[in-house]
Amino acid sequence: MSIEGQVLKIARDAKSASKALSNLSSKAKNAVLIKMSEELLNQTDYLSRENEKDLAGANQNGLSDASIDRLTLSDSTIRTIAEGLLEVAALPDPVGEVTKMWKRPNNLVVGRVRIPLGVIGIIYESRPNVTCDAAGLCLKSGNAVILRGGSEAINSNLAISSLLQDVMEKEGVPREAIQMIPVTDRAAVNEMLKLEDYIDVIIPRGGEDLIRFVVQNSRVPVIKHYKGVCHIFVDESADFDMAKEIILNAKVQRPGVCNALETLLVHRDIVSRFLPSMIEKLEEEAVEVRGCPRVLQVVPNVKEAKDEDWYDEYLALILSVKVVNDLDEAINHITKYGSSHTEAIITSNYENSQRFLNEVDSSVVLVNASTRFSDGNELGLGAEIGISTTKLHAFGPMGLEELTTCKFVVYGNGQIRS
Amino acid sequence: MSIEGQVLKIARDAKSASKALSNLSSKAKNAVLIKMSEELLNQTDYLSRENEKDLAGANQNGLSDASIDRLTLSDSTIRTIAEGLLEVAALPDPVGEVTKMWKRPNNLVVGRVRIPLGVIGIIYESRPNVTCDAAGLCLKSGNAVILRGGSEAINSNLAISSLLQDVMEKEGVPREAIQMIPVTDRAAVNEMLKLEDYIDVIIPRGGEDLIRFVVQNSRVPVIKHYKGVCHIFVDESADFDMAKEIILNAKVQRPGVCNALETLLVHRDIVSRFLPSMIEKLEEEAVEVRGCPRVLQVVPNVKEAKDEDWYDEYLALILSVKVVNDLDEAINHITKYGSSHTEAIITSNYENSQRFLNEVDSSVVLVNASTRFSDGNELGLGAEIGISTTKLHAFGPMGLEELTTCKFVVYGNGQIRS
Repeated sequence: MSIEGQVLKIARDAKSASKALSNLSSKAKNAVLIKMSEELLNQTDYLSRENEKDLAGANQNGLSDASIDRLTLSDSTIRTIAEGLLEVAALPDPVGEVTKMWKRPNNLVVGRVRIPLGVIGIIYESRPNVTCDAAGLCLKSGNAVILRGGSEAINSNLAISSLLQDVMEKEGVPREAIQMIPVTDRAAVNEMLKLEDYIDVIIPRGGEDLIRFVVQNSRVPVIKHYKGVCHIFVDESADFDMAKEIILNAKVQRPGVCNALETLLVHRDIVSRFLPSMIEKLEEEAVEVRGCPRVLQVVPNVKEAKDEDWYDEYLALILSVKVVNDLDEAINHITKYGSSHTEAIITSNYENSQRFLNEVDSSVVLVNASTRFSDGNELGLGAEIGISTTKLHAFGPMGLEELTTCKFVVYGNGQIRS
Repeated sequence: MSIEGQVLKIARDAKSASKALSNLSSKAKNAVLIKMSEELLNQTDYLSRENEKDLAGANQNGLSDASIDRLTLSDSTIRTIAEGLLEVAALPDPVGEVTKMWKRPNNLVVGRVRIPLGVIGIIYESRPNVTCDAAGLCLKSGNAVILRGGSEAINSNLAISSLLQDVMEKEGVPREAIQMIPVTDRAAVNEMLKLEDYIDVIIPRGGEDLIRFVVQNSRVPVIKHYKGVCHIFVDESADFDMAKEIILNAKVQRPGVCNALETLLVHRDIVSRFLPSMIEKLEEEAVEVRGCPRVLQVVPNVKEAKDEDWYDEYLALILSVKVVNDLDEAINHITKYGSSHTEAIITSNYENSQRFLNEVDSSVVLVNASTRFSDGNELGLGAEIGISTTKLHAFGPMGLEELTTCKFVVYGNGQIRS
């Protein structure tokens, strides 16, 4: 069969499986998730063997240590994945929730009921854990899923997905509810992006290039974020100790992720009191600071930032720092250079905290807390399928609820329209 | 300036106006809406004169009576539009609503707050009332709007929009919050569909051809429905009198709209008792019935339906009728031929009512009520900006809430991630 034919068959089968899934009870879905978790642990040896094939390929192709690290399915990675499935099983089922119900003057009773979206397409890069995490969240929210992972992880991904499929089949759930596209050719992605009649939404996860390719070529709606250029603004009234702890945490704790700090904005009135010791602390943690001219006036040894620095998502131990005159200039800087992802203010001033929360147009806005909390688990959604920085359907970290929509159900007793 | 340049300028101005709009108080927005309503009534003569130009063109171009009727701004149409603005002013403001708020184990307080989407693009055909209705809903929900109406209504549309802009300017709201694209060239639409950095969502309203063109050519997310092939299933246990009243209402009361009945499904056990008198009543109302072979067995004088009839949105006094063996066959027929818009069951059987509500995958599902209630006003949303039959962001009639999204606000006191 042609690649296009294979992908079309997968999508049709997914659509048909999604009907069965949408009516599964929470009990049945949870039982499957628990069995999947057990089976992953039982099959650790098999998964490791398949993962070895990918690792051998990665070594041959000279992948970076970081990439190989992301690709590796160690025993502890497999345990973490298996535990993740148990956590998803323990979350409340969003499907069937009646979010509102009201009575009309003519006695019609109108309700809004949560239903699955249908078929979710996930396009992602090296990490094989995404295969299982995404499959678990889609199953719990009653959606069929079509997974398309990177070629470097294909053996690991197929091993995980076939194991999950076998468990589903034993439990009486159609195995087409979770399908991995076995073809790593780019043509498979191109075909997937055309199938608007079968796939309800595409969630790309990976680097900016992958995501831009998907957005530009997809007829299926896409939920995505390109990058996270996260800002912290230190207001004139900030508690300096708190500011330092939060900034270090946001920049250093895990610099390679989208909610890490990339640009620090500092109120001009505290520059000389705050910045020298702050930059010293950052440099102790091996952070390279790139400052605006006003930063260089007080800390002359740092690099000067170029205009492109303000747009950059470093994903590394680099931080751009800019002095601003006031809250307005901070907000304007974020509006111009930001990515609508996550921004925080450190302040003791009530009015400024409220203005920052209201006026900064990002999906997550924090007062006196680290940007690293911009994450589905940390915010209390229980899990995360991705992050959206566009406003349609979802804005910010997405959990199970964001994999559903609401339909109208109407209870009448003979009403007609006059 | 080139057409592309004009559209780009409009979009940029809209984006910048949307910032001001998102922070307007409900009081300020309502005051503007009330002033707009008054001004429409004050300027009835001016609006009529501009509308005359469009009507003259329509007559020259030989438009149908129905089209000319839709295009006409009579005094009573203008009164209805003006009243619509007052109704929108009276609706609750969705912006700023805290839909949920919770505390995390580390004492972070996380809230979800409704915010406007930003800039809405509306692409529509002849009716000039859409210009004002859509502008009012977008203003109330804090969104800037870019309107692109049909060439046949351009004078009426520009008259309405410039009048609304003048009111806004007097009230201190940027006039760029509501902009009509003055160019009726198709190139203006093409350019609009590319401006993903400035326009947050496009809502096309009109015929299926227009909507398909928009979906296929847009890089901006689109919320839409192609058509409404609405079904009513008369279950074996239905109250026949109720069924007849509801079916007549759904088919005849306003056949040219998307929530009108197009296909009737009848349980086989009631065919001979129910169908002959039902079809008689329909024919009394000048409805042409097209039946499946089993319909023709009991009412031989009706036309036979072809396969394409089951897909058809007639928007006219035509009804296709099919006999089905049971609820399952009814649901399967709807799944295969339906448009995910609106379906109803007439039944006295509890289990069948629940199964129909759960298993029919349409945006509005009713028991014992007319499909004509599938409308934002009738369902109690207070207003309607459009209907979505795809599940992302909104499913079914959309009111003010559907013109908003939620961002996360987080109140901390120094929390860092460990």
